[in-house]
Amino acid sequence: MMQILDLRNKIGDSSLKTMGLGRPINDDRDLEKTVIKILNKVKDRGDKAIKSFTKLLDEVTIKKLQVSPQEIQEADGLVSEELKQAIKLAASNIRKFHEAQVLKSTPIQMTTGVECWSKSVAINRVGLYIPAGSAPLFSSLLMLGIPAVIAGCEQIVLCTPPDKNGKVHPAILFTASLIGLTSIYKCGGAQAIAGMAYGTESIPWVHKIFGPGNRFVTMAKQLVQKDGISIDMPAGPTELLVYADKDANPVYVAADLLSQAEHGADSQVVLVSYSESVLRNVKLELDKQLETLPRKEIAEKSLPNSKAVLVLDDEEAMKLINAYAPEHLILNCANADALAEKVINAGSVFLGNYSPESAGDYATGTNHVLPTNGYAKSYSGVSVDSFVKKISYQKLTEEGLKNIGPAIELMAAAEGLEGHKRAVTYRINK
Amino acid sequence: MMQILDLRNKIGDSSLKTMGLGRPINDDRDLEKTVIKILNKVKDRGDKAIKSFTKLLDEVTIKKLQVSPQEIQEADGLVSEELKQAIKLAASNIRKFHEAQVLKSTPIQMTTGVECWSKSVAINRVGLYIPAGSAPLFSSLLMLGIPAVIAGCEQIVLCTPPDKNGKVHPAILFTASLIGLTSIYKCGGAQAIAGMAYGTESIPWVHKIFGPGNRFVTMAKQLVQKDGISIDMPAGPTELLVYADKDANPVYVAADLLSQAEHGADSQVVLVSYSESVLRNVKLELDKQLETLPRKEIAEKSLPNSKAVLVLDDEEAMKLINAYAPEHLILNCANADALAEKVINAGSVFLGNYSPESAGDYATGTNHVLPTNGYAKSYSGVSVDSFVKKISYQKLTEEGLKNIGPAIELMAAAEGLEGHKRAVTYRINK
Repeated sequence: MMQILDLRNKIGDSSLKTMGLGRPINDDRDLEKTVIKILNKVKDRGDKAIKSFTKLLDEVTIKKLQVSPQEIQEADGLVSEELKQAIKLAASNIRKFHEAQVLKSTPIQMTTGVECWSKSVAINRVGLYIPAGSAPLFSSLLMLGIPAVIAGCEQIVLCTPPDKNGKVHPAILFTASLIGLTSIYKCGGAQAIAGMAYGTESIPWVHKIFGPGNRFVTMAKQLVQKDGISIDMPAGPTELLVYADKDANPVYVAADLLSQAEHGADSQVVLVSYSESVLRNVKLELDKQLETLPRKEIAEKSLPNSKAVLVLDDEEAMKLINAYAPEHLILNCANADALAEKVINAGSVFLGNYSPESAGDYATGTNHVLPTNGYAKSYSGVSVDSFVKKISYQKLTEEGLKNIGPAIELMAAAEGLEGHKRAVTYRINK
Repeated sequence: MMQILDLRNKIGDSSLKTMGLGRPINDDRDLEKTVIKILNKVKDRGDKAIKSFTKLLDEVTIKKLQVSPQEIQEADGLVSEELKQAIKLAASNIRKFHEAQVLKSTPIQMTTGVECWSKSVAINRVGLYIPAGSAPLFSSLLMLGIPAVIAGCEQIVLCTPPDKNGKVHPAILFTASLIGLTSIYKCGGAQAIAGMAYGTESIPWVHKIFGPGNRFVTMAKQLVQKDGISIDMPAGPTELLVYADKDANPVYVAADLLSQAEHGADSQVVLVSYSESVLRNVKLELDKQLETLPRKEIAEKSLPNSKAVLVLDDEEAMKLINAYAPEHLILNCANADALAEKVINAGSVFLGNYSPESAGDYATGTNHVLPTNGYAKSYSGVSVDSFVKKISYQKLTEEGLKNIGPAIELMAAAEGLEGHKRAVTYRINK
């Protein structure tokens, strides 16, 4: 079911599409219209609109959108002790990795009397969206909530859809509580994004919205940008590329590919190797493992879009990888360290035989909110940086302005901006 | 001509618009249609389309889009020695400030056998747009080109419109040459953005496009994002807010306000003070200085949109500043250091009486490509960070995976993702 492409000697300047590795493109025009309607209704009617969309789309009547402290407390009793410990271990690693991202900036003396510095300042109000459709993604909440708290965001709003009983999954509430979030709303889909973008009677508006979601959520995030709300990154279906050398274990490789394929019917899975026997063996192993996979139906839909690519050698493989720019890249090969140095475009890289993608999805400490759809060419994954902006500062003394003033005057005049020049001249020619 | 608003005791939760400080909103629907046409023509017809738009819009026939080495050499003779020295001084400060932004990352040992790190990797192909309509903005080229070179971008493409003789302004060519750029194209407007987004016979395509421009350029940058090209930041008219205390020199304050007002008829200028006499004196001084300003006509159009705001005290001023989120903020007051600590939303901050905005525009070393239109709430200005993405890495040994594997298995199972769990199980239960 996974198509084998022989691309030996063909990886050069031809496009991914020509090589059979193009990503699927959705025609989103109808979706856009629907989502615009949802956004406008929430903008106009606030909570009322959100509740009526929740009834219509999530098929549940919600009286109070905000999760109560009592519900959070109840959830604590519904999560097993061992799952709590697992979440705490993951949280601790994620915290450790992300705390190292906090930047301390020291002023730089540019010349006598001219001092410049920059400072990371938390984005004041941020919104996190956590889907709960096919699974309660508390791991994504760790990935977004922890850096938001480390950055020091003052208002952190969490929206996540309620289940059929009007409840939020206890593992999500436990995780939120562990991180220290209390502003939690039972609200999903495009209506949740609208709530955080424009604010309602219950839901606080925010400056920036984070988090994965279905096509409605993704479209809503795209659209609210027009109203000045920023978002973490453009989103597409999740992806994994595995580069396997001749000694890669086909059982592990197949398991990694399936862990990605089970995400959704639109997941992208690519296997690359110079060894035909590895490609064949992984394919056999895939079929075998698929039989007993609980989410077999989903994985089966995704695999036909996926490709097994035969290349000549490491060099062709790295060319292909950098052209594809995978969200997740597993280098399952003996020389993984050396190849990792040659990665230019990827979201997160997993080295060697014992680094499955799911390790990074949950617990190594790195972030799993990563650029998809080729965006790894210009975007980073979520980090503490995503929750701050850097403000630059400069302080000049009279002497400092005298030192660099003449250069400013000359440049301003050459750009035809006499007003810029005068702002200096008045000060240094008193 | 500058309207005085008395907002004492009125700065709270009411919107900027209600307070009379809303930013102008352009209706861009017609513009969007025009720009889409330009983008599509360039996508389909490449250089031919670019040349015909250049003929139509810049009124000049260009045979060869790329600037020749000879033209670069000629330009060198056309720039005065003193301007060259000024540009070199600015370049040296900008280089010093931006080199400090380069991040070294060291691997973190998360637990025995689990090592994680992240690495800044240059965006491979970037495009810089430098306008030349009302002025040859070589200073913006310094601000974009220097961090691109420091980041290590492999392909740096520069597009800038030709003058009526089909030439690029010598100061721009000198600056490009100083920075080390050679891939320079005579091409402006939306057609230049299209050229860099899609590539033509002459112009290389890029992953990310930077730089200021008119409404066509801004719209084109917005639109090419749909095709997977990223951009530096959303752009709006440039802005300055000056907070002046009772001892601020009205001559300096007025000069600063005019230096911003002369940029364009849509520039935003806001003066804030608790001192009515300072507001009055700055207003008088504005009128006086305006008379002799070469770009009087432009500044005169911008000033009526501008506001002088009376507040009660520092506290109200800081509330207003953080709500407005100005691109440039001058704290012209004795306690500038203390107030700077309270700035949450601003692009670049200038402290004290001797720190005019034009110092940062040209030569302090900080970047002058900054978030406008309130985007300082969630965006940073351009920095080396804008030219890299951070890739995360993880490397686990068998022991490492055994250490965190059980937590991963539990979490994956709780999220209903059995395939994720198995990728671990197969490895640790051999």
